[in-house]
Amino acid sequence: MRIAALAGGVGASKLLLGLARVMDSRQLTVIVNTGDDLALHGLEISPDLDIVTYTLGGVVNPATGWGFDKETFWFLERLAVYGCPKWFHLGDRDLATHVYRTDELRKGATLAQVADSIRCALGVQARIMPMSNQPVRTMIGTQNGSLHFQEYLVKLRAKPAVRRIRFEGSRDAKPAPGVLEALRTADGIVICPSNPLISIGPILAVPGIREALRKRRDRVIAVCPLVGGKSLKGPSDRMMTQMGLEASASGVARLYQDICGTLLIDRTDSAQAPAIEALGMRAVCGPTVMRTLHDKVRVARLVLESISNCVAHTRPGRGNMSPIQNARGRK
Amino acid sequence: MRIAALAGGVGASKLLLGLARVMDSRQLTVIVNTGDDLALHGLEISPDLDIVTYTLGGVVNPATGWGFDKETFWFLERLAVYGCPKWFHLGDRDLATHVYRTDELRKGATLAQVADSIRCALGVQARIMPMSNQPVRTMIGTQNGSLHFQEYLVKLRAKPAVRRIRFEGSRDAKPAPGVLEALRTADGIVICPSNPLISIGPILAVPGIREALRKRRDRVIAVCPLVGGKSLKGPSDRMMTQMGLEASASGVARLYQDICGTLLIDRTDSAQAPAIEALGMRAVCGPTVMRTLHDKVRVARLVLESISNCVAHTRPGRGNMSPIQNARGRK
Repeated sequence: MRIAALAGGVGASKLLLGLARVMDSRQLTVIVNTGDDLALHGLEISPDLDIVTYTLGGVVNPATGWGFDKETFWFLERLAVYGCPKWFHLGDRDLATHVYRTDELRKGATLAQVADSIRCALGVQARIMPMSNQPVRTMIGTQNGSLHFQEYLVKLRAKPAVRRIRFEGSRDAKPAPGVLEALRTADGIVICPSNPLISIGPILAVPGIREALRKRRDRVIAVCPLVGGKSLKGPSDRMMTQMGLEASASGVARLYQDICGTLLIDRTDSAQAPAIEALGMRAVCGPTVMRTLHDKVRVARLVLESISNCVAHTRPGRGNMSPIQNARGRK
Repeated sequence: MRIAALAGGVGASKLLLGLARVMDSRQLTVIVNTGDDLALHGLEISPDLDIVTYTLGGVVNPATGWGFDKETFWFLERLAVYGCPKWFHLGDRDLATHVYRTDELRKGATLAQVADSIRCALGVQARIMPMSNQPVRTMIGTQNGSLHFQEYLVKLRAKPAVRRIRFEGSRDAKPAPGVLEALRTADGIVICPSNPLISIGPILAVPGIREALRKRRDRVIAVCPLVGGKSLKGPSDRMMTQMGLEASASGVARLYQDICGTLLIDRTDSAQAPAIEALGMRAVCGPTVMRTLHDKVRVARLVLESISNCVAHTRPGRGNMSPIQNARGRK
């Protein structure tokens, strides 16, 4: 089974780790948000690409979900002596990735080429590609003006109220080579449990990607990042509320309504299933919280099963319409 | 007393540390070789500038004379995973200097401006300046072709026989701002005990610097880097022999004959004093080996005393001719 996945950072990586365990990971293509990318100290940093790659490469810090395990921060300590800001945590091992990427980009490689070299070097069998080779920057409009996403998230700890989200450069961006093909040929497309506004949103803002998903809506399953209206990590819930959206599974469903046939929601949110189904989507209830590897594998299995069901339901003679199916209570 | 010093790396730094202890270090200007500079992994690296600055800043690794004390090398370990060469030892702390310098240069700062920011950040009171803001690259001609100096020295451990030394870019280089003024106004000019061919040589190859020294020959004192015909560190002796020069104090004297009035040679080389004096230079004999801080201070004192003697001998009425003076046996 060929799977394409749309991914942000830490939340997505949990599911991807599960998927890589339960399927032939060479058949997995991960399309990663690069709206969070930033240039800092002259280095080109792609936080979500690195989180996904480090996680699948088995080198990620399990406590944080980003950066290297057993990392040191001597570089950053010394950089501060030169008056450079140290709010963005660059570890000594992690730095090798940024220096390598920056050097390769300056020599003319594309971001996709570098991402591929890095995942190969880390022994990752899944394909990992940026959503685009062109820079797209997620800018957060607050009452104090427009902030780079990392400034908002890391420097200001997501404290300013979000008024507006803009994906700078998205209009001129093209999907990275292979992205549209992966979406077209996948047996199933997974929208990982990442922030819909600022992790999945930038990917969908790249011209062509949202359209590609719409065409394959029946094969698209999203894993809801909110449980009981709360995000498990990061400011998804708060941002949704600040943007006038309902911070709930059905709020997420509305954002994905046109591109997604199935939404996997947590068991505790089963009461929301009818509202989701009223939007023309299947709601599958199951465990979605992923703390242990066992959890990750379980959610990944559920995702693959749901995709198999889609495939079964869209076999010739039944047309491509997704049946609205309440899967509540399944194990 | 104002002192200007021409410096390479480790050998020079020993003397500079001594000088900074025995004089008002705000009156010390160090003009540093940048012929060894290299761009590696997209980073701009200035080994000699860093050695001098780290030494005077009190952060240098005392065991090696370069890099940071108690350094770690996690960055380099990880960079090797991406297939990058790791022959040039970049420590995690040290890396902050290279990333900072590279970023500042890209933003439009000159090498001299960055060197000054770095020495200020490290609390160094002596002025430290590159010989030039323009790139000059010391290329070593061997039977296997032309090598960047660092490749020759670090990667190939100075094993290939040297046939030719070329300072690429030197013709178009200008002395960094302040260099000529420091040479013109100093009470004494010290040529540190660095490799005459590839540490002092590149500085002298920058148009205007050799001429500036010639004009002040009486005030120039060089500390011989060879003791008993051997270099205390690095390949000076071997390189001199390979280039058809005599690897000895008088061999060094011949290289500096036109620019240097006084050569401080080691006691053990006192027999060479007449040959040096025959070149129209003063030979001062003394201890020149600097292992401990006490040694460094002692040599620095001897250098300052010799300069004081020059000043006394060149007072009005005696003209500017340096008396050929045998200082053998002085303590």
